[in-house]
Amino acid sequence: MARIGFIGLGIMGKPMAHNLLKAGHTLVVHSRSPGPVNELVEAGATAAPNPKSVAEQVDILITMLPNSPDVEKVIKGENGVLEGAREGLIIVDMSSIAPGVAQSLAKLAKEKAVTLLDAPVSGGEPKAIDGSLAIMVGGPADAFEKVQPILLNMGASAVHVGEVGAGNITKLANQVIVGVNIAAMSEALTLAAKAGADPAKVVDAISGGLAGSTVLNMKAPMVLKGNYKPGFRIELHIKDLNNALDTGAMVNSPLPLSAQVITMMKNLAEHGHQSDDHGGLIQYYEERAGVKVRG
Amino acid sequence: MARIGFIGLGIMGKPMAHNLLKAGHTLVVHSRSPGPVNELVEAGATAAPNPKSVAEQVDILITMLPNSPDVEKVIKGENGVLEGAREGLIIVDMSSIAPGVAQSLAKLAKEKAVTLLDAPVSGGEPKAIDGSLAIMVGGPADAFEKVQPILLNMGASAVHVGEVGAGNITKLANQVIVGVNIAAMSEALTLAAKAGADPAKVVDAISGGLAGSTVLNMKAPMVLKGNYKPGFRIELHIKDLNNALDTGAMVNSPLPLSAQVITMMKNLAEHGHQSDDHGGLIQYYEERAGVKVRG
Repeated sequence: MARIGFIGLGIMGKPMAHNLLKAGHTLVVHSRSPGPVNELVEAGATAAPNPKSVAEQVDILITMLPNSPDVEKVIKGENGVLEGAREGLIIVDMSSIAPGVAQSLAKLAKEKAVTLLDAPVSGGEPKAIDGSLAIMVGGPADAFEKVQPILLNMGASAVHVGEVGAGNITKLANQVIVGVNIAAMSEALTLAAKAGADPAKVVDAISGGLAGSTVLNMKAPMVLKGNYKPGFRIELHIKDLNNALDTGAMVNSPLPLSAQVITMMKNLAEHGHQSDDHGGLIQYYEERAGVKVRG
Repeated sequence: MARIGFIGLGIMGKPMAHNLLKAGHTLVVHSRSPGPVNELVEAGATAAPNPKSVAEQVDILITMLPNSPDVEKVIKGENGVLEGAREGLIIVDMSSIAPGVAQSLAKLAKEKAVTLLDAPVSGGEPKAIDGSLAIMVGGPADAFEKVQPILLNMGASAVHVGEVGAGNITKLANQVIVGVNIAAMSEALTLAAKAGADPAKVVDAISGGLAGSTVLNMKAPMVLKGNYKPGFRIELHIKDLNNALDTGAMVNSPLPLSAQVITMMKNLAEHGHQSDDHGGLIQYYEERAGVKVRG
């Protein structure tokens, strides 16, 4: 079993770290809040005072943090990972961040003979808990092969999608599709309700055809109950779509629908819905149409 | 077996009429072009010179026409269905038209003790041929029950979704979701390609998660080959989205993403892509990003 560092024990990171312990790995952890650190220590992990100290003790180091600036600080900041890293360390950043940031951190790491893989996940807290995340990995193939068995302790799949950055590009593509598919469902069901059809019957009639999607299967039942308990919070989807739009602007690729969807999501967030599940996007449509889609 | 009229033997109507003959029904047909009429007559149908004459000979009359004005003309025009209709006739309009038009035609029919159901289909030519269309039916429940066995000679499913008009509302909801989901896929895969990831690997990595959809399963393989042979033509999707936007404007329900998608589709149609499969929407993105998603 490997000696693994884990930095960032939030909603996602904590259950992921637990799954590594359960698989029998030796774990050195660090996180800002002491609660989750203590919980992991009770379960058998060792606590380290800062990212540098984690790096000094391990061969593989996983980071799971909110966004690009957090990852930059933990990797290249004072008492950061790169200060403590030995030659040959593999950093697996499982945060969802801007692909460009993953690429520049990988470049910086390489100067110290350290490899950085970007390996964001899809699936949310329930799949983090039961170890069935989908993990999208960018970076050198040999490093991917070394860490793949460890990733599979946290995920149902770990797919190598290309060079470093490709993991987060894939994640952004995922979030663009999910966000826009949720808006598509919202637009269609609001129209159906306002025009006088029964949205539940509409969903039944179209789910088996070309309009079928995992979003329709997972989110339409929530929408038909008016239940927006997360799941995946609107404010997090805003963060991901911001990264997608930034990346699109950087590489010159148009994202007109994502731009509309983020505007809707920001509007909802400003009106107190930031912690609703992203399926709650339909409320933007419902308010404007003056209709409720729920049964 | 029933005595059935069938008006409109186009790409969809001709194979649907063939399936009714195969099921053993007596068929009276009418269509503008003589070719398909002759083909059906050879297969055992009787030809009638106009919609009025069809109506005089049958108990159930199916129309399968391009758009609202065509249906209006055939039903209430000179020598139209309502001129020949006996009391108790059931008209099943399987065209995809504006829900409001279906509703006013049903009202007009009712004055002659004729019932009109709106029953648009989803699935395209291949499913019309093998009789596996998805049929969405609006109108009185008793009339629906009478015609359901006949509809199932043409479709894998025939679902009663509400009052007359609800069939087309459901179809519009379907087309909104399909069109926007195609745009979502296009936006995401173009970004992935332009940012340096392999679109085929991205599709593999995300299809099993929340981004999964029938559009991704059916259209991504076409997109990755640059193959836009229809399938369902962009110009037909423009027609359906026009009906969705008109209906949205009439009932006051916002369709911002559909409005963007129709703009993209019209732009492609103006540049010679009107007969491409709607999966060819990605060409709008590819041209603007200056990248090809195909492998």
